[in-house]
Amino acid sequence: MSEVLKIFKIGGGIIDDTAQLSQFLTELARVPERKIVVHGGGKGASQMLQNLGIEPQMVQGRRITDAATLDIVTMFYAGKTNKQVVALLQQNGVNALGLSGADGNVIRATKRPVKDVDYGFVGDIDEHSVETGLLQNLLRAGLTPVFCAITHDGQGQLLNTNADTIASSLARALAPFYQVELHFCFEKDGVLADVNDENSVIAQITPGQYQSLKASGVIAAGMVPKLDNAFAALEAGVERVVIENALKINEPVKTILCRS
Amino acid sequence: MSEVLKIFKIGGGIIDDTAQLSQFLTELARVPERKIVVHGGGKGASQMLQNLGIEPQMVQGRRITDAATLDIVTMFYAGKTNKQVVALLQQNGVNALGLSGADGNVIRATKRPVKDVDYGFVGDIDEHSVETGLLQNLLRAGLTPVFCAITHDGQGQLLNTNADTIASSLARALAPFYQVELHFCFEKDGVLADVNDENSVIAQITPGQYQSLKASGVIAAGMVPKLDNAFAALEAGVERVVIENALKINEPVKTILCRS
Repeated sequence: MSEVLKIFKIGGGIIDDTAQLSQFLTELARVPERKIVVHGGGKGASQMLQNLGIEPQMVQGRRITDAATLDIVTMFYAGKTNKQVVALLQQNGVNALGLSGADGNVIRATKRPVKDVDYGFVGDIDEHSVETGLLQNLLRAGLTPVFCAITHDGQGQLLNTNADTIASSLARALAPFYQVELHFCFEKDGVLADVNDENSVIAQITPGQYQSLKASGVIAAGMVPKLDNAFAALEAGVERVVIENALKINEPVKTILCRS
Repeated sequence: MSEVLKIFKIGGGIIDDTAQLSQFLTELARVPERKIVVHGGGKGASQMLQNLGIEPQMVQGRRITDAATLDIVTMFYAGKTNKQVVALLQQNGVNALGLSGADGNVIRATKRPVKDVDYGFVGDIDEHSVETGLLQNLLRAGLTPVFCAITHDGQGQLLNTNADTIASSLARALAPFYQVELHFCFEKDGVLADVNDENSVIAQITPGQYQSLKASGVIAAGMVPKLDNAFAALEAGVERVVIENALKINEPVKTILCRS
């Protein structure tokens, strides 16, 4: 039986709140299994772009990454946030090591082709590009890799890359070597049967149940891309996907998506 | 006979010049031995501090690192510069992996105690704190660690740390395991016998010769701390220290400091 590997993805909300980030990292240190952390951006980069007089451009909820924006997001994600998370994990006794996709060539991506929208320096992860050998080496050495949402194209270009996609790409790529659990951590306790009732967390969802919940409109529109992505990861060999509150990862209330 | 490990330290001047940085990294890719890169800061961080209305404070040529400054230098050194260097090395076929001292707990430091001057969040490296096991593991895996000038105290605090000191601490710590060559790369071809004559590079300096050159005033005052540091590294077991032009690392003209 292969070892359990837990991949935790945390989003911008928690990155922006120092107290919550610190609480999440303290809880994470209590997770005994091998683990990887993937963090998103947060509002800091947008704030700094504004302070420097560079207006963030958004299309369909996504930031357009021009050269100046790429510089700032690289600084924030790979510099400030990544090193802050690593230093706080070290404080909690977790031997964290920060990575972008360029480090150790661990995730390669391709600049998104211009169709209707030119997203700029945004990368789509190349299939089968995750360097699983390096990650296994680091995990075996007792390290906890901490990924920021920056990758590269192997030709010297850094690329802004969706953190959810990084987390699920890592989970799929490592599934042959570990029993991978992919944890999407956010501000709610799980997937809610009633968006207005925080206590209506659905404990478990199979692919069949998901189709029904989607058809009946129980699952809110905003959750659909995340869950589609999650079920695709399960189909690709990931053992389970967990949707949970970032501050309650060691508590039992959460939604577990399973293969059957 | 142990393997050769070359540690290259590059300074701010070359970081600020994209064409020169790219040229240095292309030359570095031609160095066949195992290697580590340590990079300093550059003017970008100061420029950004100014653009954000934070005046850089200097005392005796050193930046005072308050909390706001630490944020910006961490972003620049560990984010922008480090990831740019890593991505360019990857482009040149060198499997680089960026590190701060916090990553893998690889270099711990202590916040400099306040005496006459409060330097703020500046770290002095703890003796024997370099995690040589992790570095050997990375080097064996064919990776080239790329260090920025940020360390941590193990208690969650990042610290701005002198890049020359990081390079020589790494060199000393790794000396028991490799034949370590410490290369200080800058804009001149080596130590000059006549500061006004770029062609007066002294090919080799022993500790005895260094004492004479210092006594006779041949070695310019600005070089003394760097060379004192270099000879201390030799005494601590480093095989040789090389002072050379960052753009000519594969050419024969350079100054070699040797133990005897």
